[in-house]
Amino acid sequence: MLTLFTAPGTCALATHIALAEASADYALRRVKFAENEQRSPEYLTINPLGRVPALVTPDGALTETPALLVFVAQTHPTARLAPLSDPVAFAKLQSFNSYLASTVHVAHAHRPRASRWADDAAAIEAMRAKVPETMTAAFTLIENALEGPWVLGEQYSVSDGYLFTLTRWLASDSVDVENFPKVKAHHDRMAERPAVKRALAEEAAL
Amino acid sequence: MLTLFTAPGTCALATHIALAEASADYALRRVKFAENEQRSPEYLTINPLGRVPALVTPDGALTETPALLVFVAQTHPTARLAPLSDPVAFAKLQSFNSYLASTVHVAHAHRPRASRWADDAAAIEAMRAKVPETMTAAFTLIENALEGPWVLGEQYSVSDGYLFTLTRWLASDSVDVENFPKVKAHHDRMAERPAVKRALAEEAAL
Ligand SMILES: N[C@@H](CCC(=O)N[C@@H](CS)C(=O)NCC(=O)O)C(=O)O
Ligand SMILES: N[C@@H](CCC(=O)N[C@@H](CS)C(=O)NCC(=O)O)C(=O)O
Repeated sequence: MLTLFTAPGTCALATHIALAEASADYALRRVKFAENEQRSPEYLTINPLGRVPALVTPDGALTETPALLVFVAQTHPTARLAPLSDPVAFAKLQSFNSYLASTVHVAHAHRPRASRWADDAAAIEAMRAKVPETMTAAFTLIENALEGPWVLGEQYSVSDGYLFTLTRWLASDSVDVENFPKVKAHHDRMAERPAVKRALAEEAAL
Repeated sequence: MLTLFTAPGTCALATHIALAEASADYALRRVKFAENEQRSPEYLTINPLGRVPALVTPDGALTETPALLVFVAQTHPTARLAPLSDPVAFAKLQSFNSYLASTVHVAHAHRPRASRWADDAAAIEAMRAKVPETMTAAFTLIENALEGPWVLGEQYSVSDGYLFTLTRWLASDSVDVENFPKVKAHHDRMAERPAVKRALAEEAAL
């Protein structure tokens, strides 16, 4: 049994979708951001970073979306969620996930979480103001790189749920997804998958 | 043959160390930041993000440090640079690498590259001013998590070269590595490894 610590609207949805795609044996635990539960002593024993997602396994807690996505793929091989034994294809999956985590997610975070990187109010406002521009630049690169129905081309993978998760943030960042027709089509294709519908419904019910 | 596109003092050193540890067949190409070569049309065909590292393989160019580190480990299995077939241990390696890429590297980048996230000079100054604090917080977490001679404990892995690379940035961020005795000991242990000496010498000669 795996337990995903999650919060609605966050990057934890990517791991949630992977678990649903894998038909994994999982439970969900909501971390209440409104009560700052992510920084409670109890939660910090699970993830000292005070963030979601965390995935509690029989062998301890694991963190960081790119790590969890591959963990789910590797422990559920019949679901074929990652080209684990093809080093080049696997590197492309990992590269995409690392770009989302280290550049795209970070660009977005400068709106709701700008206070991580500066203290004064004017600087925080200046960071927020630039988010539409940095998110547009990031999604322009993604749009140009998308070649097939899925991130890796013909093969569906955990990267698709991750892209879907970040695409859903565009509206809140004042970026119109219609500017990126291939990303928009990817989003709509994802929304039709039973596992994605299941994850969104479970998240809404938390 | 693999070709690493690199620049001295950057995160590309982590991949360079992995290649040296693996005794891989590799060549180095310096990307001249002083001439803004990372944004030249030629280089953008290799990495559309305009960053190092990029690793050119017979099957095309690959990017993003966490992806390259695992690629080197997977294609050079006898070097035993990652616990590829142990999902929990591999997730821990990946989690550490993702934390370095998405939080620690990003915290550091708010000093030399703050203009990525805001346009006005005062905001850029405010971001720079906070870097010692965010880097201290990140390395405090790393210090508390380090348990063995290496990041994964007894087993040396690609994560060690990555940590070594970012530890070397602390001084430029006005953080004293002596505040983190286990990180400092890890750095000094790394500096004794022949592959690390080789990578540093090759980088200095570029
Ligand atoms: N690099 C981490 C980032 C995790 C992260 O930033 N999670 C956000 C939600 S999207 C969070 O928990 N924020 C709570 C906070 O900052 O207090 C990953 O990819 O998993
Ligand atoms: N997430 C990427 C980050 C790569 C990156 O930011 N590289 C820096 C050097 S440490 C760079 O090329 N900067 C050049 C620039 O911003 O113009 C990775 O981990 O490989």
